[in-house]
Amino acid sequence: MNILAIGDVVGSIGCNFLRSHLPAVKKMKGIDLVIANGENSADGNGLTPASVHHLFDSGVDVITSGNHSFRRRESYDLYDSCPALLRPANFPSSAPGKGFEVIDLGRIQVGVLNLIGVVYMESMESPFDAADRILSAGVPKITLVDFHAEATGEKRSLAYYLDGRVTAVFGTHTHVQTADETILPGGTGYLSDLGMTGPIQSVLGVKPELIIQKMRTKMPVRFDLADGDCRIDGAVFSIDEKTGKTISIERLQIL
Amino acid sequence: MNILAIGDVVGSIGCNFLRSHLPAVKKMKGIDLVIANGENSADGNGLTPASVHHLFDSGVDVITSGNHSFRRRESYDLYDSCPALLRPANFPSSAPGKGFEVIDLGRIQVGVLNLIGVVYMESMESPFDAADRILSAGVPKITLVDFHAEATGEKRSLAYYLDGRVTAVFGTHTHVQTADETILPGGTGYLSDLGMTGPIQSVLGVKPELIIQKMRTKMPVRFDLADGDCRIDGAVFSIDEKTGKTISIERLQIL
Amino acid sequence: MNILAIGDVVGSIGCNFLRSHLPAVKKMKGIDLVIANGENSADGNGLTPASVHHLFDSGVDVITSGNHSFRRRESYDLYDSCPALLRPANFPSSAPGKGFEVIDLGRIQVGVLNLIGVVYMESMESPFDAADRILSAGVPKITLVDFHAEATGEKRSLAYYLDGRVTAVFGTHTHVQTADETILPGGTGYLSDLGMTGPIQSVLGVKPELIIQKMRTKMPVRFDLADGDCRIDGAVFSIDEKTGKTISIERLQIL
Amino acid sequence: MNILAIGDVVGSIGCNFLRSHLPAVKKMKGIDLVIANGENSADGNGLTPASVHHLFDSGVDVITSGNHSFRRRESYDLYDSCPALLRPANFPSSAPGKGFEVIDLGRIQVGVLNLIGVVYMESMESPFDAADRILSAGVPKITLVDFHAEATGEKRSLAYYLDGRVTAVFGTHTHVQTADETILPGGTGYLSDLGMTGPIQSVLGVKPELIIQKMRTKMPVRFDLADGDCRIDGAVFSIDEKTGKTISIERLQIL
Ligand SMILES: [Fe+2]
Ligand SMILES: [Fe+2]
Ligand SMILES: [Fe+2]
Ligand SMILES: [Fe+2]
Ligand SMILES: [Fe+2]
Ligand SMILES: [Fe+2]
Ligand SMILES: [Fe+2]
Ligand SMILES: [Fe+2]
Repeated sequence: MNILAIGDVVGSIGCNFLRSHLPAVKKMKGIDLVIANGENSADGNGLTPASVHHLFDSGVDVITSGNHSFRRRESYDLYDSCPALLRPANFPSSAPGKGFEVIDLGRIQVGVLNLIGVVYMESMESPFDAADRILSAGVPKITLVDFHAEATGEKRSLAYYLDGRVTAVFGTHTHVQTADETILPGGTGYLSDLGMTGPIQSVLGVKPELIIQKMRTKMPVRFDLADGDCRIDGAVFSIDEKTGKTISIERLQIL
Repeated sequence: MNILAIGDVVGSIGCNFLRSHLPAVKKMKGIDLVIANGENSADGNGLTPASVHHLFDSGVDVITSGNHSFRRRESYDLYDSCPALLRPANFPSSAPGKGFEVIDLGRIQVGVLNLIGVVYMESMESPFDAADRILSAGVPKITLVDFHAEATGEKRSLAYYLDGRVTAVFGTHTHVQTADETILPGGTGYLSDLGMTGPIQSVLGVKPELIIQKMRTKMPVRFDLADGDCRIDGAVFSIDEKTGKTISIERLQIL
Repeated sequence: MNILAIGDVVGSIGCNFLRSHLPAVKKMKGIDLVIANGENSADGNGLTPASVHHLFDSGVDVITSGNHSFRRRESYDLYDSCPALLRPANFPSSAPGKGFEVIDLGRIQVGVLNLIGVVYMESMESPFDAADRILSAGVPKITLVDFHAEATGEKRSLAYYLDGRVTAVFGTHTHVQTADETILPGGTGYLSDLGMTGPIQSVLGVKPELIIQKMRTKMPVRFDLADGDCRIDGAVFSIDEKTGKTISIERLQIL
Repeated sequence: MNILAIGDVVGSIGCNFLRSHLPAVKKMKGIDLVIANGENSADGNGLTPASVHHLFDSGVDVITSGNHSFRRRESYDLYDSCPALLRPANFPSSAPGKGFEVIDLGRIQVGVLNLIGVVYMESMESPFDAADRILSAGVPKITLVDFHAEATGEKRSLAYYLDGRVTAVFGTHTHVQTADETILPGGTGYLSDLGMTGPIQSVLGVKPELIIQKMRTKMPVRFDLADGDCRIDGAVFSIDEKTGKTISIERLQIL
């Protein structure tokens, strides 16, 4: 089976671009399931009922998130009402929602696990421990992990730690796609970062001049999203349904 | 002309692999100049006279570095004696060496500027200010920048800031190649990270089990380099000598 | 002469408490000049025209600030129009205002220098370099430094670096007064942190339950100021006008 | 009863000074139990069998530690063999030793809990959660907490969180004593930091010129301990044995 994972969708501009291209991509690549990171899907960051429903209505099956999961108060109820909207599993247990869900595709079940890194980010339960906790409770043979993290060292470490125990580990958060897709020795597919879905001429989705201004002046700057042409960054994981291993990974950059 | 930039070369295993493949790569790709980040070229990290001379003898023309520039005391003199060994220009001026050099290729001159990031890294002179300072003093029409930095936001920002003012900006430090190569609107070639030259089955060059152990136990762990098959990560910037703009970028992963 | 330095004044509750007690303190301690850190003087953090004028009208002669200097857009003009309102001198030069001012007391002049730390804080010009830059341009014999910084190591280092070159170095930013007041070997008075002026039963001025909630849940929490009884934290530096050295330091905690 | 808590003892110079003064201090203040943070007690940082036994032989009853607990491999066995040597309880459970111990004084039992912060430090189990976990398992009526942490906000938050549930919370790690000793509303004694036991003319125990050199040059510098006169920083918590509450706190600075 083929699972498409899509990097952080940024704003309504990114959501709209995704909507207009996703059906064709799914058809062309024979996609059985779509996972997208939606933590920046609302204009102004975070996610809202509107942005979440827009993503689901566009053909996304599972929405993962990250450090911006709870930026918008109007999204909190969604985490409990939408089983396919995840926040990192290693957030405190008091947080709304959950970090793992099994999607029932009828003939097959797919687990999706969302974790967040702790290097250069806030302190949380160890993502290694959280993964152990959830995997030891039993997960489907086909289970993928969105590891929302900054440091390549932490990302690659977790992937090796889970190698042979999950189908694939892919990273999100940096908004830049990496080119290190690989099948690890134990059969787990891996890519350090899927990249971003949003405006091409941008710094992580934001107008470049605003981030430059912030970095140069150290003054508060409102981060307005860039406009212009968009891209979809993601990857297709082709999976052996009998073994739950990844057979191949194809990175996508749809301009 | 074609300039090959090579991501952080890790240890003698990485240096040896580079030596065995660089001549063929240079020939095949018609390379006029080779820049390599050597901050991890010594076994045990940093760089030494042996690792620096090994890289130069292998066909590297300019060695850049980063946060590990001064890890080894035996390397300090090298920065003053080897004009083509650079440390980030935005280190304090008291540091040995310099961050910018012009390489005279006879018919043409090429500037190489080494900068280091300040996001999730030590506080330094702003890389934006340092770039302005050096560019305003006058640089060759063809000038490339190795921006040794962690955060994709800082890397892309600096690239947009220098767009149209330098030939290319490429990143190093994360040891993972990114797939966002592009020609920015002003003609500057850009890639967020070149990647790493060293053992494939590794976390940034180190044995995965050691980094996992460190991350899980929070205990001190000696980071021994991995062994096994190696890779060279880098990119070829094809440059219009008349305009100093980048015409195309080809990412390389030589396994 | 006696100079009173007052730790971060928090909100209107802190400003009002300061106003009600400052005249008596000045009289009792024979204060010639009052310096107060005002970076949190506005309700909702930062400073505003109202909070700045309130502090000046209460008898504060010089207002210093820190990482919250520019949190409120309505304060930007103040930095240019009020000579005695300072922001850290090692902010980028593009920032409004300046970080050093000489106060003319008629018979004597007093320099006040505001610097910000770079350890566990944003990257800025080195506070060591900024201090050198400003001191080398010539400052009055009596010059005091508000070093707004987090790490005790950075604070004490800068104090030793400036020992004998300035009258006193005191820290702000942690909102907790330290008990390490001392005259350094070169005659410079030093205290790592002045503390806070604001509600006693609080975490840095904020209601404890809100910070606890933030730390435990990792969810966004609005930081409302605590109320109840207040305190003024500060220190009186008694200075030898002939030498510009500090003779003694008396820590104050006015409840 | 009176419990003396002593801030980070630095090197053999600090250990020796402590040894020469502790008997008199215990006698003069009527001390029933001595807790000292020993994470820097070995020359070269961390702790060793020699430094640990030196502290115990000097009259220290419980040794706590922190981010340097495991810097020296030769200390690992000590954590299992010495019941009164603690490392932070919120280290991963794989770490040697434990973070909580009950000291049996015959007529009364005293619990000592060691925790480490996660703000500006490595990610660990939440100290709030770890405290809940240990307190809910049952602790003596008299239980004190050494919270080894950097940020004043985190320190004060944990103290308010544990107010009424433990006898006292004191901080270590910054090596600078704070002046905010207080009895919180629920009866818990609190001081943000005990300070340091070691050479007075130093930056956290180290020769000032070395830390200055490190901060100014960003080059590696070996941190040799300072020498000269020493100090003991600590605090005496006077405790009501019937209620387990703190009656009063006296800060000590023995020069
Ligand atoms: Fe994102
Ligand atoms: Fe993110
Ligand atoms: Fe590197
Ligand atoms: Fe690096
Ligand atoms: Fe403040
Ligand atoms: Fe501050
Ligand atoms: Fe310490
Ligand atoms: Fe420490």
